[in-house]
Amino acid sequence: MKLKLLYTCVALAGITGSALAQETVDQAAVAKIREEGLSHSKVMETAFYLTDVAGPRLSGSPGLKRAQDWAVNQLKSWGMANAKLEPWGKFGKGWEVQKNYAAITVPYYHAIIAIPKAWTPSTNGIVKGEVVLVKADTTTDLDKYKGKLAGKIVIFDAQQKLTRSTNPDLSRYTDEQLDKMAAATMQPAGPRRQFDANSPAFAARRRMLAMRTAINKFLLDEKVGLILSQGRGTDGTTFTTNGASYADTAKAVAPELETSGEDYLRILRLVKAGQKVEMEAEIKTEFFNKDLQGYNVVAEIPGTDKKLKEQVIMIGGHLDSWHGATGATDNAAGSAVMMEAMRILKAIGYKPKRTIRIALWSSEEQGLFGSRGYVAQHFGDPRTMELKPEQAKLDAYYNLDNGTGKIRGIYLQGDSAAGPIFKAWLAPFKDLGATTVTVSNTGGTDHQSFDAVGLPGFQFIQDGMDYNTRTHHSNQDTYDRLSEDDLKQAATIVASFVYNTSERAAMIPRKALPTPPPAVTPPPATPRN
Amino acid sequence: MKLKLLYTCVALAGITGSALAQETVDQAAVAKIREEGLSHSKVMETAFYLTDVAGPRLSGSPGLKRAQDWAVNQLKSWGMANAKLEPWGKFGKGWEVQKNYAAITVPYYHAIIAIPKAWTPSTNGIVKGEVVLVKADTTTDLDKYKGKLAGKIVIFDAQQKLTRSTNPDLSRYTDEQLDKMAAATMQPAGPRRQFDANSPAFAARRRMLAMRTAINKFLLDEKVGLILSQGRGTDGTTFTTNGASYADTAKAVAPELETSGEDYLRILRLVKAGQKVEMEAEIKTEFFNKDLQGYNVVAEIPGTDKKLKEQVIMIGGHLDSWHGATGATDNAAGSAVMMEAMRILKAIGYKPKRTIRIALWSSEEQGLFGSRGYVAQHFGDPRTMELKPEQAKLDAYYNLDNGTGKIRGIYLQGDSAAGPIFKAWLAPFKDLGATTVTVSNTGGTDHQSFDAVGLPGFQFIQDGMDYNTRTHHSNQDTYDRLSEDDLKQAATIVASFVYNTSERAAMIPRKALPTPPPAVTPPPATPRN
Repeated sequence: MKLKLLYTCVALAGITGSALAQETVDQAAVAKIREEGLSHSKVMETAFYLTDVAGPRLSGSPGLKRAQDWAVNQLKSWGMANAKLEPWGKFGKGWEVQKNYAAITVPYYHAIIAIPKAWTPSTNGIVKGEVVLVKADTTTDLDKYKGKLAGKIVIFDAQQKLTRSTNPDLSRYTDEQLDKMAAATMQPAGPRRQFDANSPAFAARRRMLAMRTAINKFLLDEKVGLILSQGRGTDGTTFTTNGASYADTAKAVAPELETSGEDYLRILRLVKAGQKVEMEAEIKTEFFNKDLQGYNVVAEIPGTDKKLKEQVIMIGGHLDSWHGATGATDNAAGSAVMMEAMRILKAIGYKPKRTIRIALWSSEEQGLFGSRGYVAQHFGDPRTMELKPEQAKLDAYYNLDNGTGKIRGIYLQGDSAAGPIFKAWLAPFKDLGATTVTVSNTGGTDHQSFDAVGLPGFQFIQDGMDYNTRTHHSNQDTYDRLSEDDLKQAATIVASFVYNTSERAAMIPRKALPTPPPAVTPPPATPRN
Repeated sequence: MKLKLLYTCVALAGITGSALAQETVDQAAVAKIREEGLSHSKVMETAFYLTDVAGPRLSGSPGLKRAQDWAVNQLKSWGMANAKLEPWGKFGKGWEVQKNYAAITVPYYHAIIAIPKAWTPSTNGIVKGEVVLVKADTTTDLDKYKGKLAGKIVIFDAQQKLTRSTNPDLSRYTDEQLDKMAAATMQPAGPRRQFDANSPAFAARRRMLAMRTAINKFLLDEKVGLILSQGRGTDGTTFTTNGASYADTAKAVAPELETSGEDYLRILRLVKAGQKVEMEAEIKTEFFNKDLQGYNVVAEIPGTDKKLKEQVIMIGGHLDSWHGATGATDNAAGSAVMMEAMRILKAIGYKPKRTIRIALWSSEEQGLFGSRGYVAQHFGDPRTMELKPEQAKLDAYYNLDNGTGKIRGIYLQGDSAAGPIFKAWLAPFKDLGATTVTVSNTGGTDHQSFDAVGLPGFQFIQDGMDYNTRTHHSNQDTYDRLSEDDLKQAATIVASFVYNTSERAAMIPRKALPTPPPAVTPPPATPRN
């Protein structure tokens, strides 16, 4: 027997233009979802296969392929329909590390913590050589190094000292912070980053990158053995980036090793003090260019209502990661939670009115490419605002990509009319800490691709945990960082949101169609944060 | 012109049996010492040579020898007399790492963060093999592995999940904590640890160690390729230990690699889930047994007062370290501060009444051996309390070995009569945060060797910083962890204490001679904390 309760929600502080809304929440369904999600969870098992078993999941890499294939089969085994890899367009070369060893050998032996920059080549076998400090602000500064760097290991000067924070690595949102978010007022929606190509900052950045490209070409021509660059991070935690383009047409670069702050600065201090430093290193990386296509994992629970089944609710997160670890919090966590939400809905025997579709994106780290490609193929072109018929049938998209922290609420991306609805849907999860609806935007991930073509695309608010201090793009983003209770909570809430969206009489109200925003140019050859 | 001020100090809370004391502090001298120590410091330069240039300083290792030789020459160059290496007795074998590489190769490639356990042997060249989980609570449990482990890489089960603290890594003493220390009441002095060989805990530990020895012998006989054990720590920070005895008669053991928690648990999770894991590793370590002697660095500023110059004030800290990093906070920091204190006193042209002697100990990490040997040779035997004539002439010993944090005060080790004296000597450094005198003992380092034969041996109170969370015996105890302002402050205060001790009419009052304590047995084959 179904017990229906009424939640009456007043318009939220800061949410303008939304009348009082009444939303029904099926408490019995929520109870079933909670029971399955909190007491019979498989989210950690799913996360284990996406991280430890698959390994690093850099776009186009064998690791990502392992995770994608496993996810497709797992979704099938849970009874999902149409589970498949769907190409979204051309990405570029895959790449993986197959040998990574570097050590100081003079003045004494010390193996260093370092990771090859993504898409950089192998060393020429084992490199043994002296470390040379290269100082060059202009290309002419490079002349003095001509003919002196063959086979050498090159280091650049760095001003940074390593500073330690007196704040904890791990933190959750305080009530004050959540209240502030809830009280936020309307902000213009739009893509996360706008790069004004004429801004001084962007021009300076372009100059810096041009200089780095010139230096790298010089070092390549000089047949340098290996380049050391300083990785962000302390205590053995090192954040990884890419050192070259993934494009199949990318220019060649020299081998480059992103080195932990402690090891980089030790070498630098020694060299600057006139102490001879020699190193040995062997880096082997492999490129994969047989298939330059990018793929997303998709699977469905088909709708069952004659009228509504053509309408689609999507959930997703990106499955690709950086290469220094196994991308546990960025974003195996979100991927596992979304897979678990699908599993929960199947497990409780739910027959949705509307079609429920999961998508696990790829190449998010290079510029939301997987979701952008999918949106372009299915929904429309954000540059021209030419929309496809499917655009009218996409009810809502829910995304998860902010680490392992539990859900504390949801960002409306300016879609204030959805506020009272979500407030009602969160009410049954007050005891699990999820209460906050903010009209604010959040950026940096795949819901933006939907938002860009006028679709209701939402990202949940998650506790930060140690995402910014330790795990985000680092060599420490491992399964160990995953918080089981938080992931169970998140999957339960997502499943409940999907259930409510599917059962709701009307689709989620939309914002006015955006006017085409200026094209978003991701900064070349640097990772997105 | 000398301005003399009188500080009158009431007996400290908790310090019993000490009458009101009046101490004079030479403000002009303090001003000179502050000027030299705070504005013309060389402490970071000294620390750089003891860490980055010398490298790891494990007892008996070439790295320790480099640091010792450099220190002797540096002290000479600053004008110290009798600078030399002084043998304190037999230590054992030296050891160092000359190659350290290990990686997962199946199911995918991943280079791991790991450090060979101290005094463990090399692998047999490059080891490539499957990782095998060995579960054995009793020696008979080992039978099932007979003939199956040759060349394999062995891992043991571990219950630990990695937990993250919500406290900051870095912390300093609060006023409340310091007030509590100041208010502490008399405690019995004595060595830091008493191991009751009959206690259940110690018996259990002995059984555990016996089992580990049996397992290790079995694995050695089976010609295992490499043993993996889990290192304490997270985020790439790994704490190191020793895996075998340094004794020249030590039994052979198998190669053992202390592996970062993240890498160890990833391998363990995979193996326990039935996923095949293969690794490749190459460990090369070298033993040094030409000279089994241990040595301390000593140097002096000779006394100039006819009557008092035979009396000696000693300062020191241990120079040896663990092998995973360069022992910056444990204890290049204390060594550099003590060297700097000597330099300061020389630089201001001080002609001490009493003789000032610095000692940089070795083998502290194995059981305070360097200072114990020195005390036995010069002052007496703590087991029999047979004392040598020098014992009567040793005024006081000041030690520094609690990391890079600034001095907040001093531990009296129960010598309450010294309280008012030190309180007066600290008064000019209130602005630098050094105020607290506590009657309490602190343990774990070389002042205890002096205390054990009835000598006034003191350790300063230092801010903890990230000593316990990140640096103490870890692979992250590097120069980067050193806090320049803190080390300058510490050297300035130590120099001032030495000056005051030397100028004082009487020697520092002593406690009653201890009755011989039970012999201190450090736990076998495990590091002291």
